[in-house]
Amino acid sequence: MYCVGVDIGGMSIKAGVVDAKGNILKKESIPTVVDDGPDKIIADMGELILRLADPKDRDFVGIGLGCPGAINSAAGTVDQAYNLKWTKVPLAEKLSRYISRPIVVSNDANVAALGETMFGVGRTYSNTVMITLGTGVGGGIIIDNKLYEGNESKGGELGHMVISVDGEQCTCGRKGCLEAYCSATALIHDTQKAMKADKSSKMWEYAQGSLDKVSGKTAFECSKLGDESAIKVVDRFVKYLGEGMLNFANIFRPQAIILGGGICAQGAYLINKLKDYCVERDYGFAGMPRFDILTAQLGNDAGIIGAAALIFSNNQ
Amino acid sequence: MYCVGVDIGGMSIKAGVVDAKGNILKKESIPTVVDDGPDKIIADMGELILRLADPKDRDFVGIGLGCPGAINSAAGTVDQAYNLKWTKVPLAEKLSRYISRPIVVSNDANVAALGETMFGVGRTYSNTVMITLGTGVGGGIIIDNKLYEGNESKGGELGHMVISVDGEQCTCGRKGCLEAYCSATALIHDTQKAMKADKSSKMWEYAQGSLDKVSGKTAFECSKLGDESAIKVVDRFVKYLGEGMLNFANIFRPQAIILGGGICAQGAYLINKLKDYCVERDYGFAGMPRFDILTAQLGNDAGIIGAAALIFSNNQ
Repeated sequence: MYCVGVDIGGMSIKAGVVDAKGNILKKESIPTVVDDGPDKIIADMGELILRLADPKDRDFVGIGLGCPGAINSAAGTVDQAYNLKWTKVPLAEKLSRYISRPIVVSNDANVAALGETMFGVGRTYSNTVMITLGTGVGGGIIIDNKLYEGNESKGGELGHMVISVDGEQCTCGRKGCLEAYCSATALIHDTQKAMKADKSSKMWEYAQGSLDKVSGKTAFECSKLGDESAIKVVDRFVKYLGEGMLNFANIFRPQAIILGGGICAQGAYLINKLKDYCVERDYGFAGMPRFDILTAQLGNDAGIIGAAALIFSNNQ
Repeated sequence: MYCVGVDIGGMSIKAGVVDAKGNILKKESIPTVVDDGPDKIIADMGELILRLADPKDRDFVGIGLGCPGAINSAAGTVDQAYNLKWTKVPLAEKLSRYISRPIVVSNDANVAALGETMFGVGRTYSNTVMITLGTGVGGGIIIDNKLYEGNESKGGELGHMVISVDGEQCTCGRKGCLEAYCSATALIHDTQKAMKADKSSKMWEYAQGSLDKVSGKTAFECSKLGDESAIKVVDRFVKYLGEGMLNFANIFRPQAIILGGGICAQGAYLINKLKDYCVERDYGFAGMPRFDILTAQLGNDAGIIGAAALIFSNNQ
């Protein structure tokens, strides 16, 4: 039994044949030419899938698609995907004209959460919350090894949980969302602000004297060197992320919270700080089950493997 | 088909025979003598149930129990219930010595959420979040007409979501939890604070000149009379509760959020303010499904009906 997982992005469409253990047997990618429009892109996607798997093969059990934006999984539609310039595209239906196999579509952050839980770092767990820290903060909720997506698949917007009423302005219109403190964008902004306030910070050297060269690494790497301003930036980041994670722990009491995104390259340095923060503040009496804090491990393949997991999760 | 729903409280144990439509056919209650200890209380509970239903009747499909505190539903145990003075009590097992019928135990806030969703105001919905505003703030999460309880049933602590990092001190140890702003306790505290700052407020007259006579109604009733300090208290309450509700909307995107607790007596006056607050700030693009805001309607019977719903929910 295998299926094809497809990771649709604004730059490229990656597809892979994935077995029931989450191994990628072969993969291929094509560029996403956004201006071609959905019909042409979906036709190319169909060809790509047909190059990888034979729809006549009974072992080929389905196609999972991970797509950015607002998806309706039950309907198989992409309601809105800004970086593809798609609005109300019946993706599953259009793709089914090329390949007659079951097709499941979900949001890319959800897909990553499912992939990591079924086949990645969370594979020994069945109830997890994944928080992806990127340009924004996305998330996915896995309950009993299945995605929980909410009404019309519009839940799981974990980055848009206000943790500080009247706090930092968020792109969603509200103030104080987790995303406004814990996205890579917010971390870079905080780092730049700290540098402006401390001209002697080691962060200036690390960023080659330029605010434009600040990345999500700058504060973390300089905090390891003992730079006080960098330490403050990291501590603030850990505090807000820790508060967000404790919220999800109290709401879901998952077995594990999985962190994704570039910041995870900080590995144990970040995770240990988060564990210290959360252990001290976790809710409840002594017998309360604690949650693990893990970093995603599927890397660039998460999209393909997670998309395939959509099919395996439905076949359980 | 019917079952017995049992609402275990610190003052009394209420039990009722409930049919598959959520109607209470008969009910009875006994006082809870906490000092008797769990064995005697559970024996009395067994007798109470046997007076209401005959275990030989095949239509009697099970017993649902709602209990305050930290419950482990899968194990059928009460891990910690402070107002019963129970620690690690194997409730289901002990009760099964008296009656050989399926027994399901859950936390009282969870039970209320399930009852309201299956048989109360939320009966046309299958995905809801209920927030109970009492001395504390409790909650329940209903997914596909079933309770979501989290690992060892320790999720659903919706009152302990921080919405204001470094904000008001909460009983749980963290600062800024929803409970610290939106419990009846917090509302009363805010009302008293506003009264101290405004000696000419109508709230003084409403509370008969005494801070001790302030209730959850004081600010609401005086805001209706145009009292400015009262209006500010209500606006703040609506703002923090609205932010909490928007968080749950973004996380779960439920079909409805149900509010429970005494404050719901404010009915449309409260709900309309919350709707105005949330509609303006709800996440996403124009096609995003919106959530209803409802008030609980099962009243004092919620515990019995909700406990019975635990059995019906498992029998679906």
